[in-house]
Amino acid sequence: MKFLHTGDWHIGKKIKGYALLEEQEDAFQQVLAISEKHAVDAVVIAGDLYDRSVPSVEAIELFNEMIQTINLKKQLPLLAVSGNHDSAVRLEAGGPWYQATHFHLNTRLSQAFQPVIIEKTQFFLLPYFEPFEARQYFNDDTIKTIQIAMERVVEEMTKSFLPDYQQVLVAHFFAAGSERSDSETSVTVGGLDNVSVSLLEDHFDYVALGHLHNRHALKNETVKYSGTLLKYSLSEVNQTKGVWIVTMEDGQVSVAFESIQPLRDVSIVEGSFSELLSPEVYQQVNRDDYIGIRLTDREVIPNVMNQLSSVYPKIIQLERVNGREHQTVSNMSQEELQQQDPLTLFTKFFEEMTDGPMSQVQADYLLATIQSANKEEN
Amino acid sequence: MKFLHTGDWHIGKKIKGYALLEEQEDAFQQVLAISEKHAVDAVVIAGDLYDRSVPSVEAIELFNEMIQTINLKKQLPLLAVSGNHDSAVRLEAGGPWYQATHFHLNTRLSQAFQPVIIEKTQFFLLPYFEPFEARQYFNDDTIKTIQIAMERVVEEMTKSFLPDYQQVLVAHFFAAGSERSDSETSVTVGGLDNVSVSLLEDHFDYVALGHLHNRHALKNETVKYSGTLLKYSLSEVNQTKGVWIVTMEDGQVSVAFESIQPLRDVSIVEGSFSELLSPEVYQQVNRDDYIGIRLTDREVIPNVMNQLSSVYPKIIQLERVNGREHQTVSNMSQEELQQQDPLTLFTKFFEEMTDGPMSQVQADYLLATIQSANKEEN
Repeated sequence: MKFLHTGDWHIGKKIKGYALLEEQEDAFQQVLAISEKHAVDAVVIAGDLYDRSVPSVEAIELFNEMIQTINLKKQLPLLAVSGNHDSAVRLEAGGPWYQATHFHLNTRLSQAFQPVIIEKTQFFLLPYFEPFEARQYFNDDTIKTIQIAMERVVEEMTKSFLPDYQQVLVAHFFAAGSERSDSETSVTVGGLDNVSVSLLEDHFDYVALGHLHNRHALKNETVKYSGTLLKYSLSEVNQTKGVWIVTMEDGQVSVAFESIQPLRDVSIVEGSFSELLSPEVYQQVNRDDYIGIRLTDREVIPNVMNQLSSVYPKIIQLERVNGREHQTVSNMSQEELQQQDPLTLFTKFFEEMTDGPMSQVQADYLLATIQSANKEEN
Repeated sequence: MKFLHTGDWHIGKKIKGYALLEEQEDAFQQVLAISEKHAVDAVVIAGDLYDRSVPSVEAIELFNEMIQTINLKKQLPLLAVSGNHDSAVRLEAGGPWYQATHFHLNTRLSQAFQPVIIEKTQFFLLPYFEPFEARQYFNDDTIKTIQIAMERVVEEMTKSFLPDYQQVLVAHFFAAGSERSDSETSVTVGGLDNVSVSLLEDHFDYVALGHLHNRHALKNETVKYSGTLLKYSLSEVNQTKGVWIVTMEDGQVSVAFESIQPLRDVSIVEGSFSELLSPEVYQQVNRDDYIGIRLTDREVIPNVMNQLSSVYPKIIQLERVNGREHQTVSNMSQEELQQQDPLTLFTKFFEEMTDGPMSQVQADYLLATIQSANKEEN
């Protein structure tokens, strides 16, 4: 049997206020086309279906359309788990009804031990969970970390393993040794959230992971992150996004990658202010992308953001790669900071943040505010 | 055939901060028992399933349990529409899957014209909608009011009427001539939201309405509001809540009422402060109720709310039925108000709102704030 492994759709995701619904809809159509091209037997989504626990109405509409298309229109089995960005309860509303058409959406730990069987493969669908849920489920207070929890979870799952069947785990967590991107939410700090890869590869023929945005976050043949549907931060700018096509055959597993071409890409443009505004440069750039600008100039440029936006309408970051001429607030020492008067300090901070000087109106307002605050103190 | 007509569940409703989930769960169990006692063929919920468009996780959990119990566990057909308190999109997530088990949840006007047929009865499930949706659906800009929209909607529905069948409309709106309660949300003002009862009774054998909280809001034999599951405001204190059992037989309709006993009631206690605190009085009262207190005293009583709460833990209103000794802010004339200094005015307002005098700390803080504000003005 053959299935498509995707995850981290983050439907409703915004980058710096730009909603990506159109890009997500387009990427979904590509996922659908890939699933048809390979005639897969199932689509697996490894968590973070939505970007927020309370998604917008627009995000819900798009997601509803997606699951209806896959499962009702294309009649493909759909196996999914909730991720740390999803609200398990909000997501599970239709859960018991979905199963009739082979849409299995697990949102609770307790659902993970009853595998879904397709041909000769058992799929264990493990939603994102916290150690306290495992403590409750196993009635064992010694379960303090996800690693300990996963040892128990895997042990429990193996009890249902059928001989002559292959086993796939679908899960959403941080596997030890993975590389992170900027746009992921760190679930817990201090290593408590790590699950060792050996535990996974020892027991399952394939592990379809979600959580990390880079499909190469783990260097492993059979334990894989799908990566996100699209680039969701500038740190992912050099990643090719897509899905895995996993083939389970005669006890063997093979994995192939299919890429997704974004409707609008996330990219970085670097140069001096004058270069960036010159047609020779910007005509080489896909200006409809979500663009991070790396400015090489060091001097203050009045109104820089407005000027750049007139050429690059969707700027998601503006970085000064060579630093600035003037000393900025953020790299002053504690001592230096204390020696500055509030007016100077705030003015520097304002210029650093907006990349331009204050207008006279703004400066007057700041002065009046500081004077009024001083008056109240006295 | 026989069905149970309920509505306005408002799952997740709070009265003055008190969540009613336990009371709602209890009332639901009674609805279930009534449906079994009468061996109904279907349960009809006429909108406002939830109290808010974005319900809490707890409300969603309770509602999910309810619909699963009715439709999956008890295997009863469930016919429901969204009301003005519901988010159509959030509610409809599982919609296409629900239908396989005869759970019909309509959230869009366009779904209302395909009736659900049970035995010899056609149910038209019309969700709450706004005139603009009817303008779009019928592609007719002249539809400015719900009455005009409903004329078109009913006309459209009659095209699907089958001879020898009876027709039931399930809907959620304000029918002309109904009486309102305090806890309803007025959908629009100025009469634009009225639907004439004659339009309804002329075309349907029974109209199962939701929206108004009083089941007697309309005096009509076959066009009825179910009323809420529970009393949701003090204005409903004298209403008996429950459900209608509607029997459709040989072209005839008969309606019977079944009451619901609240786990905790909403009630009013009236008396002087000393009476209310005397055991002879409060031992006659079910003090676990949500209580509106009608205080007969006219004088200022320090710390009145705290003292009453020690006896009546769930006070949802405190009213001075005989007015007060002191002139209050709210009944001063514009001229009188202008003559008061801010300190006096705010002190009166504070005492009126909290039903007690200011503490010294509060009075000091008020004075300092007023002085500081005056300083800034000068």
